[in-house]
Parts: sequence; C-alpha cells; structure tokens
Amino acid sequence: MTYCVGILVRAGLVMISDTRTNSGVDNVNTFRKLYLFEQPGEAAMALAGAGDLSVIQSILSMVTEGFPNPETGEVERLLDTVSMFKAAQLVGRAMRETSRAAQQNGEGGLSDTQILLGGQRKGRRLRLFMIYPAGNFIEASDDTPFLQIGEHKYGKPILDRAVTFETDLQSALKLGLISMDSTLRSNLGVGLPIDLAVLPRDTQRVELSHRIEAGDPYFEDLRQRWSEALRATHQAIPKPPYEGIAESVELVPARRR
Amino acid sequence: MTYCVGILVRAGLVMISDTRTNSGVDNVNTFRKLYLFEQPGEAAMALAGAGDLSVIQSILSMVTEGFPNPETGEVERLLDTVSMFKAAQLVGRAMRETSRAAQQNGEGGLSDTQILLGGQRKGRRLRLFMIYPAGNFIEASDDTPFLQIGEHKYGKPILDRAVTFETDLQSALKLGLISMDSTLRSNLGVGLPIDLAVLPRDTQRVELSHRIEAGDPYFEDLRQRWSEALRATHQAIPKPPYEGIAESVELVPARRR
Repeated sequence: MTYCVGILVRAGLVMISDTRTNSGVDNVNTFRKLYLFEQPGEAAMALAGAGDLSVIQSILSMVTEGFPNPETGEVERLLDTVSMFKAAQLVGRAMRETSRAAQQNGEGGLSDTQILLGGQRKGRRLRLFMIYPAGNFIEASDDTPFLQIGEHKYGKPILDRAVTFETDLQSALKLGLISMDSTLRSNLGVGLPIDLAVLPRDTQRVELSHRIEAGDPYFEDLRQRWSEALRATHQAIPKPPYEGIAESVELVPARRR
Repeated sequence: MTYCVGILVRAGLVMISDTRTNSGVDNVNTFRKLYLFEQPGEAAMALAGAGDLSVIQSILSMVTEGFPNPETGEVERLLDTVSMFKAAQLVGRAMRETSRAAQQNGEGGLSDTQILLGGQRKGRRLRLFMIYPAGNFIEASDDTPFLQIGEHKYGKPILDRAVTFETDLQSALKLGLISMDSTLRSNLGVGLPIDLAVLPRDTQRVELSHRIEAGDPYFEDLRQRWSEALRATHQAIPKPPYEGIAESVELVPARRR
C-alpha cells in the first residue's frame, strides 16, 4: 500500500508520499511515488499515485512523453496543458486508457489506482485534484483543504482536527508529516523514506523537494515529540467517573438450565 | 458501520462500542451492539458485533436461548459454557450457522460480520477473542492487548502508541474512549451514544456498564482536552527545516515541444 496526502492552503500546496510498495508481504520495495513537473515561473505540478505501480508508472510516462488526444489528434503533455483543469483531464485520460488496456489484457476490473495532482500555471489558480481510475476527478476546496489516497484512515483524524485553508505552509507540512507518522506506525504497508514537495501559491515553483530518509533528525524529533505529547495528554485527562453507574444498561439475565 | 474495541490488560477487560447502524446514509439508527452476560461471581462476558445487524442479533438470540450442538445433540447456551474457549467456539458455531443460512437464502458470500467476545469464568482465565464469519477466532495476547472490529483504522494509532498489558483499567477505558473519539470525528458511520463495560479480572462481574449519551460531561471534556492538546502539541513542534534542500530529488525536466 501507499499513503499520499495533498494539502492546499491559502499560502500554497504541500504534497507528501511514502515510497513503500509491496506485492504481498514478502516482496517489499522502495519506489518514488511523488513526481514533480516544473517550468520555473511558468508552471509547477506535483503528481502522486497510490495503487498499482505499473499503472502509475505508465500514466507518468504517458503524461511526460505525451500521447494523442483522440478528439484533436494532437499529442499532449502535462507541462503543455493550459490549466490545471486540462492537466487533470489529461491525467484522467491516461488513467482511463491504462486501466482499459489492463482490463482488455485480462486483469479484470478497473484497477484501484488513485492519483493526486496539484499545481499551478501562471495566471491561473493553484488547484489540487484526486483522480479516479475511470478518469473522473474531485477537487480540494476551502472547506476540505486536503485530499488523501491509499491508506488514508490512520492519518485522517489529525488532518480533520487541525488543517484549515488558513493553515500556514510550514504548519501544513508539519501536520502532513504527523499524519504520515500515524500511518507509518499503524500500517506496515507504508514506509520510509518519505518524499515531500512544497509549491507556494503564485510562484509556479517547487520551492522545496526533499526526501526524508530513516534517521532524519527533524522527522525523528517530530515523531518523538508527538508520541510523548500524546502520552502526556492522555495521562493528563482525568480518569472516567463512571464507576458503579449500571442502571442505564439492560443486563441479559443470568440463566441456568 | 460500527466501531468496537476490546482492551485486555492485567487488571481486567474493557469493551466499548458505538451504536450507529446504517443501511446507506439515509437510514441511520441506534442499536445496541454491546451485550453483557453475567452470573455474578461465576461468569461475566461481553459480546460486541460489527457488520450485519441481522446476523449479530441472530447470533445473540442463539447463544442466549441456546441451540443444539450437532456433535452431542445437547442444547448449549453462552452462560453454560465451561470456559471462554468453549464460549468462543459456541459463538463461532452460531456465526457459521447464521452466515450459512444467509448464504443459502441467496445473500451471496459470507457476511463481513465480526464479533468480539471477552470475559471470564470462575477459576479460568480472562480472555478476549475476535470471531470471524467462518467461526474461527483469534485471541488478544500480552503483546497485542487490544482487538478492534468495524471502522478500526482511525482509532488505531493511539492504541498502538499507548496501550500495553500493564495499562491500568481506568486508563484503558480512557484510551478506548480517545480511540472512539478519533473514529467519531472522522467517520459518519460511527456515532453516539457509546456503550461501555468494564470487567475486572478474577471478579467474574460487570463492574461498570454505562451508556455515554451526547452531552455526557466527562466525554465532552475528554474530547475537548484531547483536541486542545493535539493542537498545542503540533503547534509546539518546530517547523520543518527543509527549506531549499532540493538536491536529493530528481526533477522531471521541463520540456517544450
């Protein structure tokens, strides 16, 4: 499995992805799942995929090298698209074609691959999309400023509680890393290293692109502080006062034959 | 959906369950999913189910009223079983028969129902089992002192971090409620009220059986303290130092046709 999260705040976009892939539990590998596309000052995009690695890598090659639009016959590439909406449509079409080919070649139904695509083209809006195998997509909004793919449940509570559209970019990155940490601890299918990218709004640049390896001092410190604070917090919460309160529950009566 | 957790520590057993059931999102109801069986001083058991409510209620009726053991022909009831292992086998058999009946009546495969069964009979060990639709089961151990069924991922990180076999009973209850709170916040299929039960080891009694309704002062306070502490914690973690570190990532080169 995989865990990827994109957080779109007023100040910009954060994308974080783990790198673990596995085919069963005995064939575990490290693969990059976060890819960056940049024409500095003109366009910057980040794409992350969860699901079938062959599908993700095919899509990546298609949108990087270009493939023909069946309507116009023109070859289209991700960095040539005029808006993020067109970019999402292009990735959606690559996804649909790859899924359809896999289906025709006997792999059965649509794959469960999902893709996050975020970024901005000069003069257009910074946007973040989640693209489904059928090629359709949804967009992050001010109300729901993050999108997750893969093993998303473990790391969702902290995002639900703490991320808003007004969260600053560094805090968004920090919260994304805390969310990733919760997932790493609870699911073996998600593992280090972690790739991350930060795209500030209206710069059309990848300001930060970094890989967190095992032993990264900041991430180790974050994990330890978070663990310690959770421990201190639950210890500081008073103990439940419910002793002896039994009247509100119906007990199944004890019976003997 | 549902979320139920059983925590088995040295001091005893805690069982917590929500009460929301839904058929789609427009048919939402409250149903008890945590049931207690008690012969004070002799035997005390708690049973919680997640999945198909009709399957859970059938199993409950079968093990309460008794049903024949195909090998001996004798009618067996949960409170008549001589050990928790036999009790788990009985629930497993009820589960298998109910699942098989549903299958034969055209409902397709085995249901995805799961059951937690914990408790103790005098002179025997306090045990906690998770029972699968096929009737087989696994047991909580000193290494993994909790078992979860239903929507278990949101609330797993706090348990992974904080619960050990040496956790005291009140803290186990508190941690179970924090785990439930994380699930409530992130999944609409899990809702108040919450039922909980505490069975101290070697008492064969349900010491505490309580329903937490909306507005319960302790639970409201716990939720608020937890939220505030999480906020304070992530705010106290230093900001990421990664600015400008871009050398370790391969950028897909910008290209123009």
